[in-house]
Parts: sequence; structure tokens; C-alpha cells
Amino acid sequence: MTPIDPDYARRCRDSFARQPAMATLGIALGDVAPGRALLRMRVRPELTQQHGFLHAGIVSTGLDTACGYAAFSLMPADAGVLTIEFKVNLLAPARGPELVFEGEVTKAGRTISVADARAFETGDAKAGRKLVATMTATIMTVLGRADVRH
Amino acid sequence: MTPIDPDYARRCRDSFARQPAMATLGIALGDVAPGRALLRMRVRPELTQQHGFLHAGIVSTGLDTACGYAAFSLMPADAGVLTIEFKVNLLAPARGPELVFEGEVTKAGRTISVADARAFETGDAKAGRKLVATMTATIMTVLGRADVRH
Amino acid sequence: MTPIDPDYARRCRDSFARQPAMATLGIALGDVAPGRALLRMRVRPELTQQHGFLHAGIVSTGLDTACGYAAFSLMPADAGVLTIEFKVNLLAPARGPELVFEGEVTKAGRTISVADARAFETGDAKAGRKLVATMTATIMTVLGRADVRH
Amino acid sequence: MTPIDPDYARRCRDSFARQPAMATLGIALGDVAPGRALLRMRVRPELTQQHGFLHAGIVSTGLDTACGYAAFSLMPADAGVLTIEFKVNLLAPARGPELVFEGEVTKAGRTISVADARAFETGDAKAGRKLVATMTATIMTVLGRADVRH
Repeated sequence: MTPIDPDYARRCRDSFARQPAMATLGIALGDVAPGRALLRMRVRPELTQQHGFLHAGIVSTGLDTACGYAAFSLMPADAGVLTIEFKVNLLAPARGPELVFEGEVTKAGRTISVADARAFETGDAKAGRKLVATMTATIMTVLGRADVRH
Repeated sequence: MTPIDPDYARRCRDSFARQPAMATLGIALGDVAPGRALLRMRVRPELTQQHGFLHAGIVSTGLDTACGYAAFSLMPADAGVLTIEFKVNLLAPARGPELVFEGEVTKAGRTISVADARAFETGDAKAGRKLVATMTATIMTVLGRADVRH
Repeated sequence: MTPIDPDYARRCRDSFARQPAMATLGIALGDVAPGRALLRMRVRPELTQQHGFLHAGIVSTGLDTACGYAAFSLMPADAGVLTIEFKVNLLAPARGPELVFEGEVTKAGRTISVADARAFETGDAKAGRKLVATMTATIMTVLGRADVRH
Repeated sequence: MTPIDPDYARRCRDSFARQPAMATLGIALGDVAPGRALLRMRVRPELTQQHGFLHAGIVSTGLDTACGYAAFSLMPADAGVLTIEFKVNLLAPARGPELVFEGEVTKAGRTISVADARAFETGDAKAGRKLVATMTATIMTVLGRADVRH
């Protein structure tokens, strides 16, 4: 996929850095490529649910953000990104110690884009990584309103 | 709807209290009734996204939890609750100052239940409340594994 | 809800009549009101799946159409309606003999609207009706392209 | 993925052949492999909507069926398959002349499986094929009730 804005990566990182929720939850932005974004998170006990696993809503927060920046990377420089809706399937408990969220644009549209993301639990090198959740998100390009805080 | 477990309300409150994520995010359990659960949350700046609104993932956390306890209230005493999947529609930015999450069981099944939830932003008494997001969640009853932390 | 186009009902009926799929599947448009649409269908054996119930995809066809016309009723006269995505929960097998699909707009937006629909199985007067499926749909208003066949 | 039932392909074909809806809509089962199913359909004018495209509900019917048989291929011989819910994203109008529906299991569970499917529009050899819709479906294995009509 070809980005409209050659400066897409910096734009994504700037926008991500302006999200207080990311720092609070300990979610970091890893690689950004045109139509793709990867996030990392260490599972913290204070974000778990009653079974000791990361709360499904926090898993969704990572997935949604990965979808959002995957789509945002393909938007024009003066666009804002808005999630309209998403659906999550929780495939396995997310224990950690680390989660990786990989978002990818499935269809980039002028107004509406669709992105898919997967959350993997990473263990030791031997065990490899395990798919714990998937998301499909519908995302809107809001023109004439750069993605800055109002 | 008639609860199988007459002690459902205490069971919901005990389970909710065992979720570290709820305390961390500042989400509190309000009323619980058979097939219904209501949660409240004050919007904190540290959980906002780049536009200054509550992050969609945190809105989802409240909605998912409201759906979960609505369903859990109708489960047997020895059951655990597990969200299989959910879908969220984000209808308006969630500014706060307070959000209310109302979950309600649409179909209670022996193994699979479906619950719907709505998130409202509450302002002053005059303005009334505003619908900001909706969720439909599919929830599984896990028998022989009470809803305690492992 | 207040329709922008006072002639909304005729516009919905005209559009519905231009859908060959509706006649083929035996789905009829009942009441239309601002933000609401009701459809009826008799379950035909040739549209069932391997258990003898109406195929989930056909149930979805009715639900999607109910959502679409609920949203279309609130659109301007020169707008076309486009479903972006939907989610269906199948709560019970749809045996018939008749199904009713009720669609309602949850949030009407200038570009994006959200509608919810429910499918009921209607039996004899005594038994009442039974909820068999629910849908949430995200619908786009396409301006400058009236809802006619191209 | 390893099928539990070595006779999975015949079992899928037998079940598919018992669905009157498939013959009525002109959907045919192509390849079946463990965890995968491919369906084909010619777009018929009598199944189109008001813009002359295949109705989204019919696209969903193909996607749902592809997900169902992808999951069914991994189930025990005495199991029945039941779709609990699905979500569809409609990425482009489905004009045809032919659609291909490819379903694949993302997570096979004892009770709950998740499958994803994609619908492609196939044109001439030069143009290649175009992604028109995606689905994620949650599917239940119903034991002790073989997938025959009751």
C-alpha cells in the first residue's frame, strides 16, 4: 500500500504520543508501515479481571489502536482518524507476560476503511506466540480536522 | 427474568470486587438485578485518546463488564462467566464527566447468552443523558468452575 | 425522529420495490415510519438449511433490509443508502411459519447512521412471538446519488 | 489442521447437499480441506438489490456457509454445526459475474470455534479477483446431534 503522506510514520507516532491512555495502560507503538501498525504491552496485574487475565476491554484497546494507526498511516496529512465500530473475538485468555497487537488495513477507502488486528501472547522463544484475540474495525477518515487534541 | 441463584447480587459484587482492572480504571458497580447490571465511571484525563475523549477501548471495557454481569446474574452459583466476543458501535465522543454503562440480557441460554449494553454520558440535569456507544456481547457459562481467580 | 424528506414513505416503498431479491425471497415491506421499518416473510422450505430452519443468511437479509429502510426513511430525498457492515446474533432457530423483521435507527448521523433490528417468529395468537435474531448495522448516506439502480 | 473425522469431506458434502437454500440461491461447494471450505456462486439478477448488486444478505449467506463448513470439517463425526453470530464488512459492491467465498478456521475449540471468510468477485483472467466482503463467525459444535435434518 502506498501512503498519501510520505511523513506518515512521524504523524502516527506524534498522534500516538498524544494519547494519555497509551502511557497509562503501558501500550507502546512499535513498527509502523503503510497500512500496518504494531503495538506492544506488558500485562500488568492492575489491568486484569477476576480470573487473573488481562481484561477483554484492555485487549480491545490495544487491538483498536493497532487498527486505528494502520488506517491512519494511509490517510492524508490533514486527516483525523475516527473508529466507527469494531468487533472482537476473544480466542484464549491473555496472560502475558507480553502482548503484541498487529493491525493491518484490509480495505482503504476515501471515507471508510476497514482494518483487522490480531493480539498475540508472547512467551519464551521455544513456545512461540499464541493468538489470543482478533478484531475487525471500521474506521472513518475525517478531513479538514487534523488528528490533534481539541 | 428469574435468577437460578437467589444470592446472585452478592455473587456479582464479589466477582466485580476481584477485578483489579475495575478499580484501576475507576469503574464502579451500581445496581444489579436479574439480567441487568449498571456501572458508573468518571472520565479521567489519563484514559483519553488524542482528541481528549475517553478511549474507545475503555468505553468497551465498561460495556463488556456491564454485559458480563448482566449475564452472570442469571447463572448458577458454581458458574464462571466468559466473554466470547463483542461488537461496539461508537456513536459519539465520550467526554464525560461521567459515563453510565447499562447491560441487559437479551437471551439467556444454558451455555450461550447474549447481552446488550449502552453507554450514556451524563451531564447536568437539564441536558439529560446522551447515548455514546452500544455493545452486543456473546457470553458463555462455564460450569464447574466458579468465577474465582485461579 | 423527524424525517428530512416528508415523502420518505413513498421513497422507501419505491426503493424496496426495485429490489428483485425481496420478491425472490418473499420478503414484503410492512409499516414504514420515520426511523423505523417493518418487514414480513413466510418461511419457505427452499430457503432452509440442513436442519430445516431458515438459513441464517436469509434471516440476515431480512434484518439488513429492515435496518436499511429504517435509516433510509430519515435521509434526504437525493440520498442513496449503503450498508457498511452488520453483526447478527442468532438466538433461536427460525422455523416460521412467518418472520417479522423490525428495524429502528439508534443514531442518525449526517454520513453514518446506526440501526438495530430484531427478527421475531410469529406463531399462533396464544404462543405469541419469539425473538430469533438481532442485528446492529452501520449504514452510510451517499449524497448526490439517489437510491436508484445504475 | 488435523481433522478428528477422516471422512470429513464426505460429511461436509452430504450436509451441504441437504441445504435447500444452497440450491435455490445457486451456491455450490468447491474444495473442502481440514479447516477450510470454498464456495462458488454466479450472481443472478433475481437476488440483487436496488442498485443491481448482489444483496448483502446473500453475500452473507455465502460467507456464513463457508465459515460453517470450514469449522464443520474439524468436528467429530456425530457433531452438528450451529452459527451463533457473525459480522460482515461490505467492502465493495458485488456485481459478479461470479463470487467465490473462502472460509477458514481461525481457532478451533471443543465447543466454540471462530472462522473467517472472504468473498471475492472474479472477473476475467486479466483483472484478477477483487475482495468484496469479509466475515468473522462464531460457531458452536453441538455434540450428540449429528448434522442431519430433524
